[in-house]
Amino acid sequence: MAAFEVVAKQFVTHYYTTFDGDRKSLGALYRDNSMLTFESAQSLGTGSIVEKLANLPFQKVQHQVTTIDAQPAASNSIFILVTGQLLVDDSEHPLGYSQAFQLTQDPAGSWFVQNDVFKLNLG
Amino acid sequence: MAAFEVVAKQFVTHYYTTFDGDRKSLGALYRDNSMLTFESAQSLGTGSIVEKLANLPFQKVQHQVTTIDAQPAASNSIFILVTGQLLVDDSEHPLGYSQAFQLTQDPAGSWFVQNDVFKLNLG
Repeated sequence: MAAFEVVAKQFVTHYYTTFDGDRKSLGALYRDNSMLTFESAQSLGTGSIVEKLANLPFQKVQHQVTTIDAQPAASNSIFILVTGQLLVDDSEHPLGYSQAFQLTQDPAGSWFVQNDVFKLNLG
Repeated sequence: MAAFEVVAKQFVTHYYTTFDGDRKSLGALYRDNSMLTFESAQSLGTGSIVEKLANLPFQKVQHQVTTIDAQPAASNSIFILVTGQLLVDDSEHPLGYSQAFQLTQDPAGSWFVQNDVFKLNLG
């Protein structure tokens, strides 16, 4: 497996484990110029993104990843498309979703989320 | 609407119109370092990508876009997630799909597809 694929899979596992455990902790994965588009609502920067994620209208959530496809991208970035299903609160009806990420390294070598677009697959 | 959103919407319309009309013509939208991951199969470069798309196992296809979300990205790129449905041949059962693109400009100022990941939303 290529290095970018290893990073992508490790990131995706860490991201959803953190999301499902304590999503306010996701701030560590964003920076001040990171962008999130969640169901077409745009947030810019760690503070705004964490506020958006923390205030989503459910208490419990469980993501199950179906596929992860990654490509190397410009500026030493990694381009990722995830598809999966999620369960919120006590619902028994999983919702399909798609989430595209672009990861970039900061000067210290840590990977962070530069671009993040989340969509439920409805209809 | 921001400039990157205008480019994204124009690109998506042009991409699927071309795909549904004569998908061999999609080569004009890729370059030699472009990457396509189609249902987890990887292709690199215009020739390989066009061969992959031209040989997909259907004659007729019709895409219907449901959502387009775009963000500006590093190196003057545009990061896009599309969700939609497609109909192949004479099937009456639309298939949901997700497609993530990253567009970049070549030295002449033309936008091309740097990264492209396509997934059917199954299950």
